[in-house]
Amino acid sequence: MEKRELLYEGKAKKIYATDKPDFCLIEFKDEATAFDGLKKEILPGKGVLNAQISALLFTFLNKEGVPTHFVRTVGERELYVQRLTIVPLEVVMRNRVAGSLTQRLGLAEGMGLKQSILEFYYKSDKLHDPLVNEDHIFAFAWAPPEVVGKIEKLSRRVNEALKAFFAEAGLDLVDFKLEFGFNGKREVVLGDEISPDTCRLWDLKTGEKLDKDRFRRDLGNVTAAYAQVLDRLRAAYRLREGNSPGRRG
Amino acid sequence: MEKRELLYEGKAKKIYATDKPDFCLIEFKDEATAFDGLKKEILPGKGVLNAQISALLFTFLNKEGVPTHFVRTVGERELYVQRLTIVPLEVVMRNRVAGSLTQRLGLAEGMGLKQSILEFYYKSDKLHDPLVNEDHIFAFAWAPPEVVGKIEKLSRRVNEALKAFFAEAGLDLVDFKLEFGFNGKREVVLGDEISPDTCRLWDLKTGEKLDKDRFRRDLGNVTAAYAQVLDRLRAAYRLREGNSPGRRG
Repeated sequence: MEKRELLYEGKAKKIYATDKPDFCLIEFKDEATAFDGLKKEILPGKGVLNAQISALLFTFLNKEGVPTHFVRTVGERELYVQRLTIVPLEVVMRNRVAGSLTQRLGLAEGMGLKQSILEFYYKSDKLHDPLVNEDHIFAFAWAPPEVVGKIEKLSRRVNEALKAFFAEAGLDLVDFKLEFGFNGKREVVLGDEISPDTCRLWDLKTGEKLDKDRFRRDLGNVTAAYAQVLDRLRAAYRLREGNSPGRRG
Repeated sequence: MEKRELLYEGKAKKIYATDKPDFCLIEFKDEATAFDGLKKEILPGKGVLNAQISALLFTFLNKEGVPTHFVRTVGERELYVQRLTIVPLEVVMRNRVAGSLTQRLGLAEGMGLKQSILEFYYKSDKLHDPLVNEDHIFAFAWAPPEVVGKIEKLSRRVNEALKAFFAEAGLDLVDFKLEFGFNGKREVVLGDEISPDTCRLWDLKTGEKLDKDRFRRDLGNVTAAYAQVLDRLRAAYRLREGNSPGRRG
């Protein structure tokens, strides 16, 4: 595999073409941004941590039967992935009240839910990613019903799988963002990243925040928290592997 | 029927109890408000027009088999209706881009849609009626799934019926708001009002606005436009009645 031209540079990632047209490289940067880019900082090591956490979670999800773009890591901060045509939607799954929901609905952070919430946001920096529903998606032809149906089903499966896995790592998965796209075979697969930049993760016992809210709210020790997440996930993963049927016999 | 104590006074309506516990009186006021109450004016005659338009549209919908709270008019500005326990949701049905959708999604006013859009808003003055989806409704137990399913089905039926009827009156039904509640028998029925205060209505040929946007945007001739809507609806209704099977034989 050969790294080729830069296809895209975002706030936290660069995407490079490779010699294979259906695959690309995602490089995780150390830059942290929040509040639509108004707050910005370099956090040395963050890129490596997010690359490793994403790789571990995508590996876990691939094994759970969720199709993801992830193939393998390259070096310490790059992921070799299927090149996707991204569906212009962000999916947010919520297991507790936090983030934008507290203000919009006037509810206390941490409040439990009678059931998980799936939200669709239309991907548009200019419009600040507005909340939309399925009717908006169909009326403006952002994605057809069968694709939205697949995305919804996959998102709820990912939530159930990740919630259980994070719990084994002593972490409460409060909410997280997912993005989906079409691979070279026009299959709908999970893309982007899954990391403390895109998830809210609270210590299950103490409630301590171990995610990007540490950066947003100037709580300090941002990369130390991310490193703790990686350590805990690695331990939980090893435990699962040790208990897998293949090892038991 | 005897008018009793004032139960509620809103921006555009007063609701009175009657001697029958399952029924109440809605009095339509002449006050017009917009932008969360920041803009306010008395428009003499508006209350009567909205009462008569609502009565006509509820009568039409009752005949179309849509359950509504409407029983009959009392005087010129009151409706005698079933007393409802309101579901804390506003339903907005959209057939074209207008209103909040233009800013939120950066789209041109009047743009057509591939299909109608149904939106749920959580009724809360304090929170400015935030847009929500069905997951929010279930997660916070604002209404159970079977009730939301009924409301959605009824709203889409109301839209199809009203779109056709308004077209016969030479009016383009751009969007409108509905509210639902439970009557004394715990049935889900359509409540509130349906008027140029709660619908966007454009002349089908000229595109002229004949609704509350005339007030919001200081276009003048607000009540004249409402009166035109009532005249046109009455003519369209007479035409329908004249063509009804009962009269044909």
